[in-house]
Amino acid sequence: MNREKLELVTDLYEFTMSNGYFEREVDEIAYFDIFFRKVPDKGGYAIVAGLEQIIDYVENLSFDEEDINYLRTLNLFSEKYLDYLSNFKFSGDIWAIPEGTVVFPGEPLITVRAHIVEAQLLETAMLLLLNHQSLIATKTSRIVRAAQGRPIMEFGARRAHGVSAAVYGARAAIIGGAVGTSCVLTAQRFGVPASGTMAHSWIQSFESEYEAFKAYAEIYPNNSLFLVDTYNTLESGIPNAIKVFDEVLKPKGIRPLGIRLDSGDLAYLSKKAREMLDEAGYPDCKICVSNSLDEYLITSLFNQDAKIDSFGVGENLITAKSDAVFGGVYKLVAIEKDGKITPKIKISENIEKITNPSFKKVYRFYNKETNYAIADLVTLADETIPEDGYQLFDEHNTWKKKYITNYYVKELQEKIFENGKLVYETPELKEIAKYSKEQLNTIWDEVKRLRNPQKYYVDISQKLYDLKTEMLNQ
Amino acid sequence: MNREKLELVTDLYEFTMSNGYFEREVDEIAYFDIFFRKVPDKGGYAIVAGLEQIIDYVENLSFDEEDINYLRTLNLFSEKYLDYLSNFKFSGDIWAIPEGTVVFPGEPLITVRAHIVEAQLLETAMLLLLNHQSLIATKTSRIVRAAQGRPIMEFGARRAHGVSAAVYGARAAIIGGAVGTSCVLTAQRFGVPASGTMAHSWIQSFESEYEAFKAYAEIYPNNSLFLVDTYNTLESGIPNAIKVFDEVLKPKGIRPLGIRLDSGDLAYLSKKAREMLDEAGYPDCKICVSNSLDEYLITSLFNQDAKIDSFGVGENLITAKSDAVFGGVYKLVAIEKDGKITPKIKISENIEKITNPSFKKVYRFYNKETNYAIADLVTLADETIPEDGYQLFDEHNTWKKKYITNYYVKELQEKIFENGKLVYETPELKEIAKYSKEQLNTIWDEVKRLRNPQKYYVDISQKLYDLKTEMLNQ
Repeated sequence: MNREKLELVTDLYEFTMSNGYFEREVDEIAYFDIFFRKVPDKGGYAIVAGLEQIIDYVENLSFDEEDINYLRTLNLFSEKYLDYLSNFKFSGDIWAIPEGTVVFPGEPLITVRAHIVEAQLLETAMLLLLNHQSLIATKTSRIVRAAQGRPIMEFGARRAHGVSAAVYGARAAIIGGAVGTSCVLTAQRFGVPASGTMAHSWIQSFESEYEAFKAYAEIYPNNSLFLVDTYNTLESGIPNAIKVFDEVLKPKGIRPLGIRLDSGDLAYLSKKAREMLDEAGYPDCKICVSNSLDEYLITSLFNQDAKIDSFGVGENLITAKSDAVFGGVYKLVAIEKDGKITPKIKISENIEKITNPSFKKVYRFYNKETNYAIADLVTLADETIPEDGYQLFDEHNTWKKKYITNYYVKELQEKIFENGKLVYETPELKEIAKYSKEQLNTIWDEVKRLRNPQKYYVDISQKLYDLKTEMLNQ
Repeated sequence: MNREKLELVTDLYEFTMSNGYFEREVDEIAYFDIFFRKVPDKGGYAIVAGLEQIIDYVENLSFDEEDINYLRTLNLFSEKYLDYLSNFKFSGDIWAIPEGTVVFPGEPLITVRAHIVEAQLLETAMLLLLNHQSLIATKTSRIVRAAQGRPIMEFGARRAHGVSAAVYGARAAIIGGAVGTSCVLTAQRFGVPASGTMAHSWIQSFESEYEAFKAYAEIYPNNSLFLVDTYNTLESGIPNAIKVFDEVLKPKGIRPLGIRLDSGDLAYLSKKAREMLDEAGYPDCKICVSNSLDEYLITSLFNQDAKIDSFGVGENLITAKSDAVFGGVYKLVAIEKDGKITPKIKISENIEKITNPSFKKVYRFYNKETNYAIADLVTLADETIPEDGYQLFDEHNTWKKKYITNYYVKELQEKIFENGKLVYETPELKEIAKYSKEQLNTIWDEVKRLRNPQKYYVDISQKLYDLKTEMLNQ
């Protein structure tokens, strides 16, 4: 498999537009916002992810001779533009909300400020990296919440949408709260735990299930987690597992790790398994389950009082199957020429599709006593937030007002690139996951519940409202 | 972005099992089948894809020092095994159904025959490559059928699940019948058409929509397809487009390519647009639409007599959103030792999850006169199919029999690797797409319809039935 040439993982129209600006010698700075309009699965919050890969992309964005030669064959671009591309180096500014932050529809996750010829080129790759990982981090967060503190392992590689979906999907799953992954490359590259012991084929390749478990326990005494459903879980799988625990592990003074159920009625089987393991003297032997799980099935298992200690979650996590699209968009919000910023707006019959114009900042208000997040606020970039009191209002129902006090404010975006220079250090993946967990703790449970969550407000400032209204009236 | 190290895009348990066999000095050849159990979207057929990338993976599968050093840190593997891995080269046999073939649940798409230590290692990467591209090719085929001959362009990169999902998803879309893609890398790497002209940002960056179209037409007179919905489609977008066609293109004797509608009521707008374009003297100007389309929305547009010439399909295609998982599995079906093959079976309470044991072949019967496919048949590898007549039967309802005559038979799998040597030449992507279209023409429309399709039979031979029954009875 060739190295992925991200510079061409780009919609053709980015090049035609960029070349168009270049040809017309447009000397303007463009401001683009990346934001999304709705949380997948009708959820109340999302977890943003993918920034590390976006940084990698932007920093290394360049075009080699093969790229240029190919682009030339399309007969769309001038030689001057191709020459420009062959010397391309991103020279603009980027602000972004750090990975793992809890985010909401309508707020700028990333803002790009760059010469319009450059800024247009970044759209496709930035969106796809952000959309993918935010989708999986958000989905995983839902599954982790459903598991009520039991660990979730990401097991989805084989059903992922290709190699990057497996590798970076697993990365995003860790940000979303998974404790480990079956994908060895993700574990290696990002320093997180890899997990896995055996598939049905291991059992099948032996003369008997008992021999298969025994062989495994002899080779991996400290990693003895047996898959017990190849033939008959209760009559063969668990009794054979216990027999091997007794015969191979007990004499060595080693406790078994657990058993895994991968088919059948997981609620019933887990309860029976718990009884059998307890009776055999293995109350510490964990019961791990897998088999097309998601947040809804996990919730249902707990409702049935299933005895489960951990979950392996595959296809429904790694594809976010129940709602497989994170709809981040890249919208022009302003043009700067000769130092003057002209705000831009995209009008639509669909009110939610109207964009917030101009260069902006986004803030989160926290209650000083509880540390819970109160609301987010999008302002024009030059506004300051008073420390003592602020009037929030709903832009679509302006009579809905809330005056807040006793808060502190955090600006959500951080500066990532300044004049093309990277000025941000990406945290280790484990740190991002820890930060994300802390951030989630500042969000009310009502916003985080899986069904019919309470809406978290992302309001706009009076100044931004006035500007937007004025532009819409024109 | 680093080169994707596919050798570690593997579930950890493949390594623990492989090392286990190695440690026990198991000297056995394993046979694994890849097959799937159901067609996504309750469809009647699937299009298999991804073989080219699987070949690339298998041919280049090796482990470098960094891989070995990482695996060593897991404290699971013996030095002898790590040494074995560092000299790894696939040495087995692989058969596969060529990309683009119409396939059905239960038949072996790929069969791997290799030393068990090797064969186990291939599972994860082979499955993910096959599952991803088969998913997207199948989904695209549905969308293409809904479009009733109008071309489909793949526009989904920004919503794909990462880079490979964009690049190879677009490749699979071409196999499934898309005529082009917006993804430049896919177009470049696989020699297919790239398409795209402008986004809303192009329009917004100008003082007026008219100026934006005019500028574009001046730069790209032969590529003038205007996005007309930035402000108001009927009152501004289309009139401005026509004005620019008249002022810029007409004097040069160039016909416009078209307009694109990306929001609003596409049925209504397309009919109005058609009228306006016809009246202005542009009956040949194409109307292209996009905006979260899929096979159901496209069908609905035709039901409303929409006037649409081509479709740009994005997120719902590139993520197969309505059913985002293709469930191919990799199952042990036989063990060969000292030249003797012992069939293996995976039993399950779920009847459909029981596997077909042993080394097998899969055939397709075609009616000699109509050339339509009659049914597929899975047999033991050493069976031959008589030329004059064959008794098919349903393995779950054995009284359902069908005696067929007047057929010809095609073996579906081809040999890909022999003793580790590649013996197959992958066709060009365009050839695969052409082949797939021809293959689809051999399948009855009843099987291909989008809702409630007729079931296409994949039967098993009497010999295979007898073996399976005997193994289940034991």
